[in-house]
Amino acid sequence: MDLAASVAEQRELAETLFDRLRRDGMDEPGVSRDPYGPGEQRAHATVTEVAHRLGLDIAHDAAANLYMTLPGRDPAAKRLVVGSHLDSVPHGGNFDGAAGVVAGLVAVAALQRAGVTLHNDLTVMGIRAEESIWFQVSYVGSRGALGTLPDGALDVRRIDTGRTLAEHIAECGGDPDSLRARNRFLDPESLAGYLELHIEQAPSLVEAGRAVAICTGIPGNFRYPDARIEGSHDHVGLPRRFRRDAALAGAEFAIALDHLWEEYDARGVPMACTIGRFHTDAASHGLTIVPGAFHFSLDVRAYDEAVLGELDRRVDTIIAGIEQRRGVRFHRGAKARAAIGAVDPSILAALERCASDLRMPVLQLGSPASHDAAAFAAAGVPMGMIFVRNENGSHNPREAMTIDDFMAGATLLTQVLVQRYASR
Amino acid sequence: MDLAASVAEQRELAETLFDRLRRDGMDEPGVSRDPYGPGEQRAHATVTEVAHRLGLDIAHDAAANLYMTLPGRDPAAKRLVVGSHLDSVPHGGNFDGAAGVVAGLVAVAALQRAGVTLHNDLTVMGIRAEESIWFQVSYVGSRGALGTLPDGALDVRRIDTGRTLAEHIAECGGDPDSLRARNRFLDPESLAGYLELHIEQAPSLVEAGRAVAICTGIPGNFRYPDARIEGSHDHVGLPRRFRRDAALAGAEFAIALDHLWEEYDARGVPMACTIGRFHTDAASHGLTIVPGAFHFSLDVRAYDEAVLGELDRRVDTIIAGIEQRRGVRFHRGAKARAAIGAVDPSILAALERCASDLRMPVLQLGSPASHDAAAFAAAGVPMGMIFVRNENGSHNPREAMTIDDFMAGATLLTQVLVQRYASR
Repeated sequence: MDLAASVAEQRELAETLFDRLRRDGMDEPGVSRDPYGPGEQRAHATVTEVAHRLGLDIAHDAAANLYMTLPGRDPAAKRLVVGSHLDSVPHGGNFDGAAGVVAGLVAVAALQRAGVTLHNDLTVMGIRAEESIWFQVSYVGSRGALGTLPDGALDVRRIDTGRTLAEHIAECGGDPDSLRARNRFLDPESLAGYLELHIEQAPSLVEAGRAVAICTGIPGNFRYPDARIEGSHDHVGLPRRFRRDAALAGAEFAIALDHLWEEYDARGVPMACTIGRFHTDAASHGLTIVPGAFHFSLDVRAYDEAVLGELDRRVDTIIAGIEQRRGVRFHRGAKARAAIGAVDPSILAALERCASDLRMPVLQLGSPASHDAAAFAAAGVPMGMIFVRNENGSHNPREAMTIDDFMAGATLLTQVLVQRYASR
Repeated sequence: MDLAASVAEQRELAETLFDRLRRDGMDEPGVSRDPYGPGEQRAHATVTEVAHRLGLDIAHDAAANLYMTLPGRDPAAKRLVVGSHLDSVPHGGNFDGAAGVVAGLVAVAALQRAGVTLHNDLTVMGIRAEESIWFQVSYVGSRGALGTLPDGALDVRRIDTGRTLAEHIAECGGDPDSLRARNRFLDPESLAGYLELHIEQAPSLVEAGRAVAICTGIPGNFRYPDARIEGSHDHVGLPRRFRRDAALAGAEFAIALDHLWEEYDARGVPMACTIGRFHTDAASHGLTIVPGAFHFSLDVRAYDEAVLGELDRRVDTIIAGIEQRRGVRFHRGAKARAAIGAVDPSILAALERCASDLRMPVLQLGSPASHDAAAFAAAGVPMGMIFVRNENGSHNPREAMTIDDFMAGATLLTQVLVQRYASR
């Protein structure tokens, strides 16, 4: 069986599909595939069209996820899922998410062309609403499929439309009541594994001069999506000793976290910490007003539960110190948590073996970002991920993956499917 | 001549006028007297009505300032101006500005009741648009009257209406073309002096347990009303070494300035430094995005030109260091400056003498804030100011001046008018 024979065809399939998805999502600068909205809908329609052409069985679940299945030899065997998300951040890049779905379809095409039938059903999954920026909830599609959506998730509102997740899902043909009842479309017990290819969202592969990385783990996090600091609005002439400046308290908080990260970096303990929203109040701030209100979001992530717990306590201490020194109050609002996503050791070993067979030099890399794969891992599904080199970061229109690098990642994905699931 | 005889009447005049102005400007929480808009217009109408009742001559200039004149004995003598502004910040307090105009009218009423005619014409001036928050230009009314408005000032737009200062002025009966030609209504050579009573905008009088302070000087400043920092928008998972976080650069800047101020405080050199607007970009920020853009305003003020120059250079050094360390670029935008406002020594001495005659314990105080009085001082008019105790700061609805304290300040003002200008 010669998987390489049809590489030119697979490459053309990928390029055509990426071009079409870019046109579908175009929203200068970059693409916007708004989840449960027109952008994501167009991507689903395009991907469905290709799946029909490949002769795959199409299904949808209550979260309106898209399942495109190539039947295996043994209908009783556990199903294998390869997927990623089809939404994007506003004005994001074309590859973040979509590359994993395209890779799944490329793998299907390669298997078909090589006449390989897997032992297991292979489902390429186009997942909904992974990006948390829209609903401030992450992994909506994958957790909806697995019946693990958190309480209240269906009632959150999309930041731009102001309409609830439930309304948006219903509009796209989903069934929010079924999700609310925690009915699951994917029973973890019935799944052989979940594989996801994703562009890297940091330049570690660029730095290392490698096209592909094998994921060693997905970070867990804790988040304060909507925290605020209460100080006192005062006149610009107020002496320093009288001030309770909420923005300066925010600045001190940000710098303290930056120092904390510097300390962990120096100790070689991987983590990341982002204050994404960081702002005075547009309704009350001004050139001549000492800010009495400040707003921020916080995302702290690490690869080890003990490290996360330690960071959580350090944040508490930092906040207590600033409150005391600056006479302000932090109101952190709701706290969200995501568990660490462990990679299945046997899948990791299989990916290493396949890369070695392909003579493909790969990097072992802790995922810089969160992914749907973490939701599968949390549900007990054996999980593995492949990262593809990508310049200029992600969540911006300047993301840059070459088709050569993508094909290297897709080839590794196809190879692991064959080696692990064709020979049973 | 017994100025005290009519104190109850004056007090009632003040209370009635303050109540009426509060109702006119009510915009919960607080009052909004928007300059060259409905809020300020209502205040002008109310004050004009009282001036008519007191029999004062009414005039307006090209900036639509209000002049209410009590003729003196010698028509050839230089005119004396007592005034303050009638606009407010949005949702501000009732006394910031208005107290100075009410004090002028109370002084007029006291002189009339006591049968005292001053040597000089006494003009109570209701000044337009002092608060820079609306047009990002300060002292519009006073500088318009003196023909010292800076280039381009008439073309700036009010932040809420988006319409130009020229349009707003024309709408209120002013003549922007005349202002553009720098025609002046007040020739500094024709003025005997400018006196302004204002609430204190810091709690120094509260701290000192005094009702009234005599101003020793008004700070000059330099300002960047609309500065921004350019970094790189990146994904939340990006390792620290790759980031160019514009918000963290902003945080480092704010903390560096706070340390700078701490250092000056420790040296006993008065200054103040305020970053009033301090924010990520609402269109592009989010929980999972490293901020690539940050915006801020800066106001740095001091009582000594040499200190201001030194601070200016320190800000340059701080910015250069942050740009280098964090890989960001500061774009400071337009820079505004206001000169230091020196108090006339003979007016200062007269105020001290009168306070002593009245057995009124007063504080000597550098003004925490900028005032129209600085525009008069800059034009060469002998200037003096009186501050009245005020709790909870200014530019907020919680400002709190008692009518007793106000009457103490107004009595000192009346006394200095009589002692300095009645006996020639």
